[in-house]
Amino acid sequence: MINWQNVKTQLINFLKDEVEKTGLEKVTVGLSGGLDSAIVAILCKEAFGDNLNCVLMPSQFSSQSSSDHAIELCEKFDIKYEIISITPMVESFINNMDEDKLRIGNFSARMRMSVLYDVSSREKSLVVGTSNKSEILLGYGTIFGDTACAINPIGQMYKSDEFEFAKVLGVVDSIVTKAPSADLWEGQSDEDELGYSYAQMDEVLKLLVDENKDKNELISLGFEEKLIDMLEYRIKSNAFKGKLPTIANIKWS
Amino acid sequence: MINWQNVKTQLINFLKDEVEKTGLEKVTVGLSGGLDSAIVAILCKEAFGDNLNCVLMPSQFSSQSSSDHAIELCEKFDIKYEIISITPMVESFINNMDEDKLRIGNFSARMRMSVLYDVSSREKSLVVGTSNKSEILLGYGTIFGDTACAINPIGQMYKSDEFEFAKVLGVVDSIVTKAPSADLWEGQSDEDELGYSYAQMDEVLKLLVDENKDKNELISLGFEEKLIDMLEYRIKSNAFKGKLPTIANIKWS
Repeated sequence: MINWQNVKTQLINFLKDEVEKTGLEKVTVGLSGGLDSAIVAILCKEAFGDNLNCVLMPSQFSSQSSSDHAIELCEKFDIKYEIISITPMVESFINNMDEDKLRIGNFSARMRMSVLYDVSSREKSLVVGTSNKSEILLGYGTIFGDTACAINPIGQMYKSDEFEFAKVLGVVDSIVTKAPSADLWEGQSDEDELGYSYAQMDEVLKLLVDENKDKNELISLGFEEKLIDMLEYRIKSNAFKGKLPTIANIKWS
Repeated sequence: MINWQNVKTQLINFLKDEVEKTGLEKVTVGLSGGLDSAIVAILCKEAFGDNLNCVLMPSQFSSQSSSDHAIELCEKFDIKYEIISITPMVESFINNMDEDKLRIGNFSARMRMSVLYDVSSREKSLVVGTSNKSEILLGYGTIFGDTACAINPIGQMYKSDEFEFAKVLGVVDSIVTKAPSADLWEGQSDEDELGYSYAQMDEVLKLLVDENKDKNELISLGFEEKLIDMLEYRIKSNAFKGKLPTIANIKWS
């Protein structure tokens, strides 16, 4: 049993400590209408009160319900928000992207990062990130896009564990009950794209990553080989997204 | 005396090794018309031949001579390039930025990153970075903008040392002789903005960073206190640009 009140306290303290270290007083969070950013926004509201400002950044490809849910959350928790559409920026580049959904999705994520960082510059605030542990391990995010932030309170939390935490925090039902989606195009579903539910994936990820079990052990425990292979492949091939650029070491003499 | 031919060989080997590790064969470089990207492009041309493609990304605020110089370089070294203007993207957001040059500059740098990463996705290529050691230490760059890359051959090279290297590589004179500029607005000059020449700053940076000398030693060596303070302040306050996001460590029980 996880003591979620205790986790909540830890994360609020983390946020306060990290923001204080920077000398700033305010934080900015990009609200997608999904679970991750809802959790982070509530934590930030508790930690910083009116020194939190949220930004909704819809595009022509995101669904209206995403904005509706994000606004519902802001109203429930009295969170300040503004809406800045990325549609014009995406529109002005879309002819370069060969109708490739993945490229359009990554480009859109980077437009959102750019808007968010501009807002944080205007507000002299710190950008708080919203990537969860499952996404980070699977590389299910855009480098220099939605993964970009200064601090992240939920990067050690698996997606499938967030649902319980969300209930403790009081996240609105419309957000807790819908299927996880990057919302980069209509009807996108994380679990459809990845081929498994987060519950299935996280169970294996915990054993692979947190308990260092290897593939053979997992097979003997009854887990599907194809699932294990997919997860190991994704972890390996996306590890670069969590690393700094490799800089050449020069021997000068 | 630095053996620049030896440095060149090291960097070409670095590029080949790092690209091979990823399983990719191609690289993409953003060409600004400045010295850093010229050096990186020549190194990449030597390492990868026609598997290098360069992208020029002018905006309404960059000078025509920047593009001219970049094209002159590509023609001399037979480097493939394309031109993708970021003007429409910047135009579509500029009303949000309160005519703040710094915000417009950072936003523009992030638009270039977004274009560059889209091209690299189209080409299945690796983005090679062009930040030099002076810029990295001083934080004179945009996080998730021009500092974003997979690998960087010149991140351990001070700006003031690049001029000699550039001559060895055959960088065109128009690029070697002009004043360093981020070219984020007309007439911008790095050295005017920073208040000192790179030669002055790098001399102190080498002592501070590479030889671990402290402020008092540097003053006794005759260096200006104001310069030392400025450099120490910039190194400290911009260190976050070279770090990964801080993720909360959660104690689950």
